[in-house]
Amino acid sequence: MADPQQDFRVAREDLERFMGEALAAAGADPASAAAATRALVTASRMGTDSHGLRLLPHYLQALKGGRIKGAPNMHFHQRLAATGFLDADDGLGHLAGYTAMEHAVKMADEVGLGAVAVGNSSHFGAAGCYALAAAERGYLGMAFCNSDPFVLLHDGAKPFHGTNPIAFAAPVEGESPYLLDMATSSVPWNRVQQYGAIGRELPDQVAADAAGQVSRNPCDVAALLPLGGSDFGFKGAGLGGMVEILSSTLSGMLHGFKLLPMGGPDMSTPRGVGHFFLVMKPDAFVEEGTFARGLADYLADLRAQPAAEGAEVLAPGDREWRCQAKRDAEGIPLDSANQLAYAEIATQYRITPLSQLD
Amino acid sequence: MADPQQDFRVAREDLERFMGEALAAAGADPASAAAATRALVTASRMGTDSHGLRLLPHYLQALKGGRIKGAPNMHFHQRLAATGFLDADDGLGHLAGYTAMEHAVKMADEVGLGAVAVGNSSHFGAAGCYALAAAERGYLGMAFCNSDPFVLLHDGAKPFHGTNPIAFAAPVEGESPYLLDMATSSVPWNRVQQYGAIGRELPDQVAADAAGQVSRNPCDVAALLPLGGSDFGFKGAGLGGMVEILSSTLSGMLHGFKLLPMGGPDMSTPRGVGHFFLVMKPDAFVEEGTFARGLADYLADLRAQPAAEGAEVLAPGDREWRCQAKRDAEGIPLDSANQLAYAEIATQYRITPLSQLD
Repeated sequence: MADPQQDFRVAREDLERFMGEALAAAGADPASAAAATRALVTASRMGTDSHGLRLLPHYLQALKGGRIKGAPNMHFHQRLAATGFLDADDGLGHLAGYTAMEHAVKMADEVGLGAVAVGNSSHFGAAGCYALAAAERGYLGMAFCNSDPFVLLHDGAKPFHGTNPIAFAAPVEGESPYLLDMATSSVPWNRVQQYGAIGRELPDQVAADAAGQVSRNPCDVAALLPLGGSDFGFKGAGLGGMVEILSSTLSGMLHGFKLLPMGGPDMSTPRGVGHFFLVMKPDAFVEEGTFARGLADYLADLRAQPAAEGAEVLAPGDREWRCQAKRDAEGIPLDSANQLAYAEIATQYRITPLSQLD
Repeated sequence: MADPQQDFRVAREDLERFMGEALAAAGADPASAAAATRALVTASRMGTDSHGLRLLPHYLQALKGGRIKGAPNMHFHQRLAATGFLDADDGLGHLAGYTAMEHAVKMADEVGLGAVAVGNSSHFGAAGCYALAAAERGYLGMAFCNSDPFVLLHDGAKPFHGTNPIAFAAPVEGESPYLLDMATSSVPWNRVQQYGAIGRELPDQVAADAAGQVSRNPCDVAALLPLGGSDFGFKGAGLGGMVEILSSTLSGMLHGFKLLPMGGPDMSTPRGVGHFFLVMKPDAFVEEGTFARGLADYLADLRAQPAAEGAEVLAPGDREWRCQAKRDAEGIPLDSANQLAYAEIATQYRITPLSQLD
């Protein structure tokens, strides 16, 4: 391809076409390719660049290496009226996530709540995608996932938890959902790498060196601190632990500390990632319509709050929906590294390259 | 009474006796008095001094003032197999909490999950008490509660959320439960007052002045920052919002911003606090025993992690169980303010004062 461009944007449909073809070429069956494409494009439209199109090369590598099965035989075991286990058969975590959410929504529709523990899965991208899938159907959704260790325990000297995310979404009548999708560390690991690449100092209290001492120098950083930093990291670490218990202990999977690293070098051994999904029916507690009215009131009050000087008060998700509207109109940007990676994929899998928007 | 003592400790049983008598004298029926006593003593044994015996005078005042009904007619409305609403009839939040948890455990036993939204309730003390009640019965428990505004939104200039706690507990075979009980601010409001009283500077990034600017001077502080501070407070604020939606929106109550202040001066109008409780059956997803083995493995790995120099790695709850063992052996301490408050209660309600342990 030509040299990377400063302002390279692509249409959502073209990105979906490209991802679908690439995933299929790497061995993903139609359902798997569609689920991964849906999750990656959802994240990229919302501006969650760390968990969007950037990850396609990784999933292709894992499919080619055999770590992830392109044509899994996922099986759902209903256990009780509100609970079940999805054996993801080492397939793509995105298919596992959307499938589990379908089952959870069905249970919540019948008995008010539904939860699915997922085992034998793999990286599922952004947790928010699955919470959102419930909210888009009119339900409250929560999603949790463990991952390999990057984050210190509070007062710990060695990474133990993953960035173990918590996602929560709620349907808002006539609007995009309320959407919280957060790692239980302050920053993701790739922030350290990005800052290191441009020689920028990290914020205070987000990372530590190999001895567990707080460091702002990306070159010295060996681990992330849990949300809350040195003083209050017991909260972030406790939340990370809750995510770990929900996603790996309830599903019978290895906890994050024992997981093979997502980044390899082993791309052939399944990792056995666990997820946990919870769905609630909003009108399963009080009179129908009360929840919708209450949430609208709450959000109106929230958005009317005065902001600190030079700042703006937003509800969780507002920034994401604003970004999505912009990217739907103007295209989804690819930085130079992603332009190169996607050009390589086009060559390797003989796929029509992405078209740059004007 | 005599002047306050430096080292004033009381036996748990004596504290329970005193609380029960005081609550009854202020109009609480036996079930209400027992529930409030249970919650306050549980918190004080664990060392959660902000939510333990310190609160008795407040509850007595609210009972006497009529804000809280001493003999409520609480009613549970089962809605679906996994969900229900408890109308707390403006009674003590502790009775509401334990009652809701009983119903949630029963549902979880039958269908795997159970959730109860509570409305028309009042302050329930420490959220952890109710999560713990589930774990003591062998279930995973979660508890959430909204409260009146003390905490800024991210980038906000005015308190909007309460310190909206999240509690999560899980049963551990042969051990005390895993217990996370955290406010979604870094510190509680009474920390600001304590530091102000002794002229101590607050930690950075935990509080702000009336313009929403970070301040470490307790005298200037008008609000708390959400967990994560100026840079990452969108996480704490998002979690606070999740707690708000679960506890007030699902239950049809007013959200925290509109609640009457807990501290008065109005002690006669019911506040309409909402809570939310969720219970999960640990073996409702994979084979029986898998959860217990997995959690034991996880905790063993966690506690074996190296600590930063001069520090110690603990699981959530470890510090609390250690404190509980010490206080069960040596007595529960009362600081000078609490000694005075309890002496006044003894006089006012003609109750035998607490006996100081040797």
